[in-house]
Amino acid sequence: VDAALLELQSRLPAEVIDVDPHSLQSYGQDWTRFSKVNASVVLKPQTIEQIQTIIALAKRHQCRIVPSGGRTGLAGGAVATQGEWILSMDRFCRMGTLNTAALSLECEAGVTLEKLQEHLSSTPWQWPVDLASKGSAQIGGLLSTNAGGLKVIRYGHVRRWVQSITMVDGESRVQVLNGPIDKNNSGYNFRELVIGAEGTLGVLVAAHLKLCRKPQRRVHALRPAQSVKHCLESLIAARSFPLELEAFEFFSQDCVNAVLKHRPDLKSLPPAPWYCLWSWDASVGMPWDLSPDEFKAGSWLESAILVEDSSAHEIWAYRESITEALSTRGLVYKNDVAVPVDKLEDFLKELQSFCARAYQGFEVYFFGHLGDGNVHINIVNPNRDSPEAFRAHCESTNPSLYACVANYGGSCAAEHGIGLLKKKELLLTRGPSQVEWMKQVKKVFDPHGLFNPGKIFEADCQIPTAQEDSNT
Amino acid sequence: VDAALLELQSRLPAEVIDVDPHSLQSYGQDWTRFSKVNASVVLKPQTIEQIQTIIALAKRHQCRIVPSGGRTGLAGGAVATQGEWILSMDRFCRMGTLNTAALSLECEAGVTLEKLQEHLSSTPWQWPVDLASKGSAQIGGLLSTNAGGLKVIRYGHVRRWVQSITMVDGESRVQVLNGPIDKNNSGYNFRELVIGAEGTLGVLVAAHLKLCRKPQRRVHALRPAQSVKHCLESLIAARSFPLELEAFEFFSQDCVNAVLKHRPDLKSLPPAPWYCLWSWDASVGMPWDLSPDEFKAGSWLESAILVEDSSAHEIWAYRESITEALSTRGLVYKNDVAVPVDKLEDFLKELQSFCARAYQGFEVYFFGHLGDGNVHINIVNPNRDSPEAFRAHCESTNPSLYACVANYGGSCAAEHGIGLLKKKELLLTRGPSQVEWMKQVKKVFDPHGLFNPGKIFEADCQIPTAQEDSNT
Repeated sequence: VDAALLELQSRLPAEVIDVDPHSLQSYGQDWTRFSKVNASVVLKPQTIEQIQTIIALAKRHQCRIVPSGGRTGLAGGAVATQGEWILSMDRFCRMGTLNTAALSLECEAGVTLEKLQEHLSSTPWQWPVDLASKGSAQIGGLLSTNAGGLKVIRYGHVRRWVQSITMVDGESRVQVLNGPIDKNNSGYNFRELVIGAEGTLGVLVAAHLKLCRKPQRRVHALRPAQSVKHCLESLIAARSFPLELEAFEFFSQDCVNAVLKHRPDLKSLPPAPWYCLWSWDASVGMPWDLSPDEFKAGSWLESAILVEDSSAHEIWAYRESITEALSTRGLVYKNDVAVPVDKLEDFLKELQSFCARAYQGFEVYFFGHLGDGNVHINIVNPNRDSPEAFRAHCESTNPSLYACVANYGGSCAAEHGIGLLKKKELLLTRGPSQVEWMKQVKKVFDPHGLFNPGKIFEADCQIPTAQEDSNT
Repeated sequence: VDAALLELQSRLPAEVIDVDPHSLQSYGQDWTRFSKVNASVVLKPQTIEQIQTIIALAKRHQCRIVPSGGRTGLAGGAVATQGEWILSMDRFCRMGTLNTAALSLECEAGVTLEKLQEHLSSTPWQWPVDLASKGSAQIGGLLSTNAGGLKVIRYGHVRRWVQSITMVDGESRVQVLNGPIDKNNSGYNFRELVIGAEGTLGVLVAAHLKLCRKPQRRVHALRPAQSVKHCLESLIAARSFPLELEAFEFFSQDCVNAVLKHRPDLKSLPPAPWYCLWSWDASVGMPWDLSPDEFKAGSWLESAILVEDSSAHEIWAYRESITEALSTRGLVYKNDVAVPVDKLEDFLKELQSFCARAYQGFEVYFFGHLGDGNVHINIVNPNRDSPEAFRAHCESTNPSLYACVANYGGSCAAEHGIGLLKKKELLLTRGPSQVEWMKQVKKVFDPHGLFNPGKIFEADCQIPTAQEDSNT
């Protein structure tokens, strides 16, 4: 490693190289708060040529690279545990001018989502991706994790809004994946492969993003539900209503109780085991302005609280405060699964009964993106004294929990990704032959095994992994 | 081949196997009308187990398989030229029931687009893909070619509307790519890789398709333009208008003249070198019903013909009759390229001057999907006597033409795909390193080289290819 560091220092400007122990700790870590961080150096290149040099040196010295964005991930995808080089994209933060003919915007990998939103704030256009972590999350990370969020039901994942990616590969070559064109059926689509690959195939340096129109106004609804079946009935009714759904969320009464303890300023809600919360794009008109025939289709709305944009925060606060409220109650172990929407009722019944057995003495919270079949199952341990034992307990239950997910044809990582945390579960839900394909595909793009080793799957010739630990 | 045929006959019901010479000719061919068709057998399985048997026998006897749908492709992707087995999906034509919770529909690979549209005709939902070939084009082929069409500007390609694919791989294993779930960030996304892979990675047997709402009404506009620059100004204005664009097309005066000769029932248009034609989703209101402020933004519309859905055919006829009108004029050689939308003006200037030199004695027609940067360049030879010489001439000009496309960062196949016809051009626009990745990725998924050999790229150990020929 010393010879490698010496050559980095001889080939790169001093300000690109950071070996301060605090930087190694902070850049080696993501929001999963792994306890065993081990990074050799933080590199903050300013040019593509510097990235090419870094990759060539990593290859020569058999070092490994963790491509690094805002490190807001929840699966350990940006954590360094094996003495890797952290390749931070913080200094790649330029944006192009809005292209109104193509409705696109060129953006470097280190631009934060918040900066991008500010850049577009005075225009009628949006990049329709929104996340709580937007102040830190960077474009490169959002693409590498194919980020989701609240509006997937309307706009899909990040993947839908990416026109082109510029990447540096394992041979230090710049690869343009698609280019800034809208139609390109010329051979295998590697842009789509790199999106969601969690930094294992190369270093993303820039992208052309596609934009769309912002809704002119929205209307928001909160409705108590006696069962998951009733939630699904609301979903079907809300989909059939003559407005376009922008989001459709749900959460359990336990979530509301935790939120109310954390946020005493919020009003209590009519008691019910479940709540649905959704938004419609009301550009075509508010529900009460629709024709009598159209509104008749909405008589089921009588039990819902309906508000306009100006009061949206009053009902969205119950949903948006859940994560923070739970973190104040104790240690949190997160599961992020998806099943077919129409199987949610049976799945949640089985899951609730499993959780009641498996997590005695802990608190279990169900919430998430009902319209996408995406359930966040958070296990809370009010006793903060033994994070290792709590994590070990949750991991010991995972084979049963994820076997249930797999039985329903579900995903072990709906939006958070696999990273270091869900590799065993990946085998259950994707199956061994597809994971084997992943390993072989990685070898095609990254023949020297330089990029983000040990993430998503174990490579065949794996460097011994430092012990992993997480307390979230 | 005889031993293989005998074993096929011993393992499969008689009605699955067709060796009638007319069937071999017809199923070995697509809309490119290759003259050198060479197929060994047409197989029409009825069950997945039969497909698994066919693949296992192909592997054992070192035979090759051409997965076959409606064969409406324009690049030779479904043509058999090397004595392959044609695996027709005609008998996989079942559809599931509409899933209103997930807004999805399960569909077997052999369902035609027209059948799917009929299935949804009485619902508020659509699979927003539409093509002139819908009566023959099958779901499996639409996915394998990532089909485009008129509405890509609003809805994107086929890939955006596919939730899950069920495929049989080279080891006769059934692989579910994603499953019927909306969120799944668990490792590399192979669904996206298989879409657009032109049948080279496996046999698609079924898919879950995502649906969306049909527009309630649309408004259509035709506007003469003095230059490509004026066309682009119309595009930007039409995008900024408070209605959502559904399509934005353009065509040259020569196209209109050819259409008017073929369709004397159509009115002549005000003379102009170019015409733009577009549709807006007018669900929020017709342009003339918008508020004065909103309509003021549309004063540029004064030179446009605006019509409602009921009269849409009057202006769309000019665009939709082009292909047929040109085919009545002579032999047609088709190019289907895309460049960045904002570079269309410079690109078309260079292209027009190139075509004037390169195609003396022939007619050249420019039309296509301006809003997607997608230009169809059709060369017509009024003399039908020498198809081979005409094709050879066009192919001799391709290196220059596609070098120009590559200089603008364009695609050599915007929507038609590569197939057998655009393999040389692929190297120019994707570059040798990405084509090498394609070859290696194919080996991962198809280690025995069973599927659609010689399409998109030459495999490393290529069976000698029969001479190719096309007259379209």
